[in-house]
Amino acid sequence: MNLTHPFRDEDGDKLREECGVFGAVNAADAAAATALGLHALQHRGQEAAGIISFDGGEFYQRRGLGHVAENFSSSEAIAELPGFMAAGHVRYSTTGGSGMRNIQPLYADLASGGFAVAHNGNISNAGTLRQELVSKGAIFQSTSDTEVIIHLVATSRYPTMIDRLIDALRLIEGAYALVVMTPEGMIACRDPLGIRPLVMGKMGDATVFASETVALDIVGAEFVRQVEPGELVKVDFDGNVDSLHPFGARGSRPCIFEHVYFSRPDSIFDGRSVYAARKAIGEQLAIESPVEADLVVPVPDSGVPAAIGYAQQSGVPFELGIIRSHYVGRTFIQPSDGARHSSVKRKHNANRALVEGKRIVLIDDSIVRGTTSLKIVEMMREAGAAEVHFRVASPPTAHSCFYGVDTPERSKLLAARMEIEPMREFIKADSLAFVSIDGLYRAVGHDARNTACPQFCDACFTGDYPTPLTDLATREHREAQLPFDKVA
Amino acid sequence: MNLTHPFRDEDGDKLREECGVFGAVNAADAAAATALGLHALQHRGQEAAGIISFDGGEFYQRRGLGHVAENFSSSEAIAELPGFMAAGHVRYSTTGGSGMRNIQPLYADLASGGFAVAHNGNISNAGTLRQELVSKGAIFQSTSDTEVIIHLVATSRYPTMIDRLIDALRLIEGAYALVVMTPEGMIACRDPLGIRPLVMGKMGDATVFASETVALDIVGAEFVRQVEPGELVKVDFDGNVDSLHPFGARGSRPCIFEHVYFSRPDSIFDGRSVYAARKAIGEQLAIESPVEADLVVPVPDSGVPAAIGYAQQSGVPFELGIIRSHYVGRTFIQPSDGARHSSVKRKHNANRALVEGKRIVLIDDSIVRGTTSLKIVEMMREAGAAEVHFRVASPPTAHSCFYGVDTPERSKLLAARMEIEPMREFIKADSLAFVSIDGLYRAVGHDARNTACPQFCDACFTGDYPTPLTDLATREHREAQLPFDKVA
Amino acid sequence: MNLTHPFRDEDGDKLREECGVFGAVNAADAAAATALGLHALQHRGQEAAGIISFDGGEFYQRRGLGHVAENFSSSEAIAELPGFMAAGHVRYSTTGGSGMRNIQPLYADLASGGFAVAHNGNISNAGTLRQELVSKGAIFQSTSDTEVIIHLVATSRYPTMIDRLIDALRLIEGAYALVVMTPEGMIACRDPLGIRPLVMGKMGDATVFASETVALDIVGAEFVRQVEPGELVKVDFDGNVDSLHPFGARGSRPCIFEHVYFSRPDSIFDGRSVYAARKAIGEQLAIESPVEADLVVPVPDSGVPAAIGYAQQSGVPFELGIIRSHYVGRTFIQPSDGARHSSVKRKHNANRALVEGKRIVLIDDSIVRGTTSLKIVEMMREAGAAEVHFRVASPPTAHSCFYGVDTPERSKLLAARMEIEPMREFIKADSLAFVSIDGLYRAVGHDARNTACPQFCDACFTGDYPTPLTDLATREHREAQLPFDKVA
Amino acid sequence: MNLTHPFRDEDGDKLREECGVFGAVNAADAAAATALGLHALQHRGQEAAGIISFDGGEFYQRRGLGHVAENFSSSEAIAELPGFMAAGHVRYSTTGGSGMRNIQPLYADLASGGFAVAHNGNISNAGTLRQELVSKGAIFQSTSDTEVIIHLVATSRYPTMIDRLIDALRLIEGAYALVVMTPEGMIACRDPLGIRPLVMGKMGDATVFASETVALDIVGAEFVRQVEPGELVKVDFDGNVDSLHPFGARGSRPCIFEHVYFSRPDSIFDGRSVYAARKAIGEQLAIESPVEADLVVPVPDSGVPAAIGYAQQSGVPFELGIIRSHYVGRTFIQPSDGARHSSVKRKHNANRALVEGKRIVLIDDSIVRGTTSLKIVEMMREAGAAEVHFRVASPPTAHSCFYGVDTPERSKLLAARMEIEPMREFIKADSLAFVSIDGLYRAVGHDARNTACPQFCDACFTGDYPTPLTDLATREHREAQLPFDKVA
Repeated sequence: MNLTHPFRDEDGDKLREECGVFGAVNAADAAAATALGLHALQHRGQEAAGIISFDGGEFYQRRGLGHVAENFSSSEAIAELPGFMAAGHVRYSTTGGSGMRNIQPLYADLASGGFAVAHNGNISNAGTLRQELVSKGAIFQSTSDTEVIIHLVATSRYPTMIDRLIDALRLIEGAYALVVMTPEGMIACRDPLGIRPLVMGKMGDATVFASETVALDIVGAEFVRQVEPGELVKVDFDGNVDSLHPFGARGSRPCIFEHVYFSRPDSIFDGRSVYAARKAIGEQLAIESPVEADLVVPVPDSGVPAAIGYAQQSGVPFELGIIRSHYVGRTFIQPSDGARHSSVKRKHNANRALVEGKRIVLIDDSIVRGTTSLKIVEMMREAGAAEVHFRVASPPTAHSCFYGVDTPERSKLLAARMEIEPMREFIKADSLAFVSIDGLYRAVGHDARNTACPQFCDACFTGDYPTPLTDLATREHREAQLPFDKVA
Repeated sequence: MNLTHPFRDEDGDKLREECGVFGAVNAADAAAATALGLHALQHRGQEAAGIISFDGGEFYQRRGLGHVAENFSSSEAIAELPGFMAAGHVRYSTTGGSGMRNIQPLYADLASGGFAVAHNGNISNAGTLRQELVSKGAIFQSTSDTEVIIHLVATSRYPTMIDRLIDALRLIEGAYALVVMTPEGMIACRDPLGIRPLVMGKMGDATVFASETVALDIVGAEFVRQVEPGELVKVDFDGNVDSLHPFGARGSRPCIFEHVYFSRPDSIFDGRSVYAARKAIGEQLAIESPVEADLVVPVPDSGVPAAIGYAQQSGVPFELGIIRSHYVGRTFIQPSDGARHSSVKRKHNANRALVEGKRIVLIDDSIVRGTTSLKIVEMMREAGAAEVHFRVASPPTAHSCFYGVDTPERSKLLAARMEIEPMREFIKADSLAFVSIDGLYRAVGHDARNTACPQFCDACFTGDYPTPLTDLATREHREAQLPFDKVA
Repeated sequence: MNLTHPFRDEDGDKLREECGVFGAVNAADAAAATALGLHALQHRGQEAAGIISFDGGEFYQRRGLGHVAENFSSSEAIAELPGFMAAGHVRYSTTGGSGMRNIQPLYADLASGGFAVAHNGNISNAGTLRQELVSKGAIFQSTSDTEVIIHLVATSRYPTMIDRLIDALRLIEGAYALVVMTPEGMIACRDPLGIRPLVMGKMGDATVFASETVALDIVGAEFVRQVEPGELVKVDFDGNVDSLHPFGARGSRPCIFEHVYFSRPDSIFDGRSVYAARKAIGEQLAIESPVEADLVVPVPDSGVPAAIGYAQQSGVPFELGIIRSHYVGRTFIQPSDGARHSSVKRKHNANRALVEGKRIVLIDDSIVRGTTSLKIVEMMREAGAAEVHFRVASPPTAHSCFYGVDTPERSKLLAARMEIEPMREFIKADSLAFVSIDGLYRAVGHDARNTACPQFCDACFTGDYPTPLTDLATREHREAQLPFDKVA
Repeated sequence: MNLTHPFRDEDGDKLREECGVFGAVNAADAAAATALGLHALQHRGQEAAGIISFDGGEFYQRRGLGHVAENFSSSEAIAELPGFMAAGHVRYSTTGGSGMRNIQPLYADLASGGFAVAHNGNISNAGTLRQELVSKGAIFQSTSDTEVIIHLVATSRYPTMIDRLIDALRLIEGAYALVVMTPEGMIACRDPLGIRPLVMGKMGDATVFASETVALDIVGAEFVRQVEPGELVKVDFDGNVDSLHPFGARGSRPCIFEHVYFSRPDSIFDGRSVYAARKAIGEQLAIESPVEADLVVPVPDSGVPAAIGYAQQSGVPFELGIIRSHYVGRTFIQPSDGARHSSVKRKHNANRALVEGKRIVLIDDSIVRGTTSLKIVEMMREAGAAEVHFRVASPPTAHSCFYGVDTPERSKLLAARMEIEPMREFIKADSLAFVSIDGLYRAVGHDARNTACPQFCDACFTGDYPTPLTDLATREHREAQLPFDKVA
């Protein structure tokens, strides 16, 4: 959700982030529940967190860099956030001085009163909209694409807040799951294709919204249903829950990578257990790409469910051939190349006594740049593995995501640069196989991918983007017109 | 410059602040010079400081709560602020979480490019303008009245930045001394009456602006002249200096309290040495209100020059009967009542060996609430003073300031509550006298106050406000219409 | 290693800690290697870390509360620790102001030069020795039992450092693994029974010592052998390695709980893979206490290897029925009761979709107070488990440890308070079984426990303490003499 | 009080510090009173502060780098220090990591119970004593000479605490004013010559001790008398006050520089008002070294009283020709040469409007290195002064202090390097004069200096050190034996 500055993004090395949102309304301790909910969503964004609450009169805000536990576990922190409605956000952020002002939820005093919004996703025409707004005198305080929504709401000519919000959403493209607070209540909504996830729960009289069901579990809320693609759910302070579908019906395209990696395995995504989906992917892998081996070894922790599935399907025993330290985060969202490499060493260690002399099947959820995979394979060889067969529980990741997921620019994606066999050589494995795209769809409950009308957003695998990418097109158009060189 | 929130200010207990501004353009180390300049202006605002610089391409910002030295003395801090143009601001701020976003200079990305502004003063129709702007969709990020200027510039329909700024300034009332930065250069300006001070200096090829001449001294700049009331001085990156007077000619009304207390004694204000002015006030006091005594004792440090004047005029010896600790700030700008009282004890100590058995004339610059004066008199009595005669180097402060000076609400001003004799009883002095308003004018070089057309803004003494006070009138009007009680 | 203050320990609620030590000598970047080594030992102590280095002339020290990564990952931190010899320590500490001075390694300027020591273990006559030393004028600066060693060395009458150290060690009882630095070199040693672990490795010309082999792996050092019980290994700056056995031969008694829980599964402890040992314990459990079930579910992460062993032996599938958050530490070493309870909720979540309607076998490494076990069983039931059978990969923990392990006082150990069946009722499981003590010995490679001469220290299970417990006896003796009540 | 490390002090560039001590016993809020007392002594040491309290059972400690107000103004800080007895210390410290452990009061658990000591002064045989103690097995934790006292007390063979303390003090040479706390009460004492100051006051039932009387004033205590040279005053918890004189009678030699500069002007030192003494020095200067001039200008703030005296004696008007910023500390105790120079610019500004074209007499308290004096003279010339005559309110400072005062090594003292006329040239003044040593003695109430038996320690002016300087002699002896060069 970080809008890259129009004049600085041309090198394309700007990272975008995956986020998590949570909201609670008509709750006794809305902020405390939100803090706990965000903690359960911590894996979706570890760099910063924020909560805004409302007590019927005023809005209160607190935010900070770092983990939820660091910023929101103390009673003092929660005491700063009184009220019966609260919304929160965790994010993976770019570093540097501008960090604090981009921490969500964002807040503005509009003519109609306070307006707060927490956003997971990415608006693919935010740059274009921002230029239009600024040319009319709008003043942006952050570089976040989310602020575009606020300005569109502020300048909408509709009289009611819900109509102003719908008016704003009609103008934006891309992926969004929003939790909005106004002095009248909470509004949760998802983009027309439902690319990013959002679920609804019930906790006594309170209504809660969250990116994943695990956040409902931690606060003791009951799962009600997901917010539907294109739906706005409006909850007022009398507990009335209204559902609006202002954008008409369109086929949904939830992000399939939530099943592959983003969501926690104990979440239910799109009506299906993520753990079960990952095990089923592992089973598909075992069916599609079997190999003679002594051990099935997961790359911990994200490869574990698929490895269990692979082992159960193949009959090769599941064993912990790599031990993961508890004292580091996940590879995918480390800030710099340097840190990513060195963190492999601090993060994983070979279980040499187990691995020595064995033929092993390594199971990982995905391959992005391939550098980690290479190091893992080398670590297995150094520990004495006789053979190392690499199996990946997703198809080759060959395309960047423009919907709120932190991916490197395309040229750094291993699968965008080479075919399977060169990839195998690059990571130095004895064999390499990815689950097929249809195998992936089978694992999540379909016969196959519906090519005409795919059931998921799988653009990172297929390049089939379900929305226009206006900012990207504008940029490419502008670059195409540059007479000689790309400007520095 | 803090705009009090329209719905929270009705109790009138909101403090407003005095600030200091500094700017340097075409300077080799613009930010380093600005940091030093702000340090020399530290007495004008001790709660927060900020600097924005420009290197021809980008704007850079750094700000922090606390003193300039704490935030801007390290080479790391200055290295964050590259470029040949910089502007800075020190302020006295309201406390609390909203502190950081109100720290100036404020910055915005406008359609025409970056725009930074540092403001000393107070816009007396800021609330009214803000409501209009918000109703058209403007989103405010701070509670500062300065942000009104930015929004007015952003939404002006004039094509050039200077015209947009003039367009904005035409709409605002009150007192302002501004240092503005745009990608074309620096603009410094003062309100049509020149209520708040602003001077211009030369440092090699660089042009500098500052609230007081001491800031020129510290950076080694030569004093050129003051920015005239109603003048805009525009400096581009070729060093061209233009002067504009878009508002026509009006009599100037600089704040006479700069002579009384705000400015440092080594500054030249309105063409006159502040030290000399204060000594002259003391001489006037001695002429108007002589008394038989053994010692003239200043309330340190602000009462010292007037006490020297009083002693020289009266022939009574000047002596340090009160010793001030170096380790606290000035009384006037402590944040809470509690702190103000307890700080008297930590701040001043009687020089008992000197005072014991003596008749003393105490000289202070002003009396605001009177609580400090009472404690000082009591301290002298406890130290054995035989008689304590209190002489004040300004007329009674009986009216609030709405031009950027932190004053209590009127009902807390001692001189608004009682006549001289009850004041004397309140502070428990043997005698009490204030310099007369004409005596004050004589001390600063006039025969007397020109009642028809006063030479200074002296509203805090006379209640004669030189500009409309739109927000105040609106608020009073609204309150007058409330049927029964004032709203909470 | 925290010596409880003789006048405050009578309530017995003082926690003692498990620690980790690391040393590197004749290494190019001794401190950097030590930081990395400590990071790999982070699970042995998460509250504080310290490193001391030596460059041939001076000793340098740095220490801090919190994780190794927080205190020793920056190049600035490592730059403060120059030299070719370094030793470090991680610890679990008591909270409060005295924290900093107890962080190890401890350092003292002795008449013979600098002396630094890092200690894992607990000296069971430290209180008695300390009283003697203080009565002779020794001044203690910490409450650490380790400081006793330093004072004994300082006051020894032997001429050489090695003899002074041996002289000191002859006087102490209990468990210790030490890494000592002097201006002549590094000395590593283990108590005569080898209760606490210590291994030696080779990294080019450098010699390294560590509590566990994983710390050798992370720095790329080759495992050489363990330091033997009662052995002192002395390494000088020419690389000469001497081995001394000044205490004669005695049967070794390494801590069997290292296999059960403390060591990382990828470590080799006492010549055996910890992972393999844990799997074998799980297999023993399956043989000793089988049950009809649908799933084998580990309590993550420490129950995982035993669960794999149980599953492989029993044929019941291994599944992740509990998902553990990455964003919290291990239960066992949280500072307060309150935090321990609330952390269960933030730490584990049921994989409801998997568990619902199933008969599950829960595998955990041990039961201490039983409160966590209860919550886990309840969580499984709330998630719809049909039956919950609890299997524990260690015998009942019924006795406190006095050898450097943080255990609650005995009266809080569930197994000290009740038999198996009441324990089952307490944790609300359908069945409960612990591995037998002989089963445990079989899993680690013996036919059975040698009752006459046990192969391990297993006092926490058997109450059979292999050393005198002088401080404890003194305290009990003193308490026994109190005429009426125990003093407050 | 910082004991310079025997192997690092040979370059002589180690700074020593001036400190302040405060103690309160039988006081309701002992720690709160101590915090306030230390605040009044802040000018004696600004780098660190510490307080230890005792509640009848336990000792409590808090200390921190920076000012008293930063570390001890909050209610939380005071709440950490319960009890009816407390002692505190402010110090000027050496920088770096060893800072914290050297902050006083120091504390040790002795066999006889807790022992805390706050020390102002310097023990001139501390290095020698320390070597002896270490050779017997004592372990030092700080580099402070104060720790020597503790070890001497700990190893004394006398049975009572007061005898052990006396035994220890018999062994030490130099200057000390101590406040000691034991579980039996408070002991305050001064070295036999009374070089460093210490006074006693009464505050209801409480007894207080402080380095200066201003600390009594701030807590509302009544001045009783000074602690006499060589006296130990012992206060128990029943309020009994005993006076001991174990060292016999010797002529007292209080530090005359307390009158010149160290003490606050509102303090009574050695029975005389410091303000009156400084004024009298100024009068002596005017008598001894008159000059035709227009203005008497003090170098603020320490030169002000002498300037008032000079002006009153000479009839030349006293004026503020230099304005001092409130936002910096005193020159004398800035940590490095670099900071000292740059701070002149940030600290003082010429009152140009006053000074221009005038002949001025500058009055300063002393000249140390002369670099500041030079800058001040230059500043006056740049501001247009016609003539600048420099008068110094002390004799030339030509010798280092070894009694707890931070002085540069002798070779950096301007008066050690040259006669008066070259000094005048160095600082570029039109004339330069110092008060004579006899004039100084006259100003503080004596006819002249008693050469046979001086009434004060004036070693910094005369080189006449009243005690042996054992460490210095040892070092010089050792250096004299070095065959060629001084070791690095």
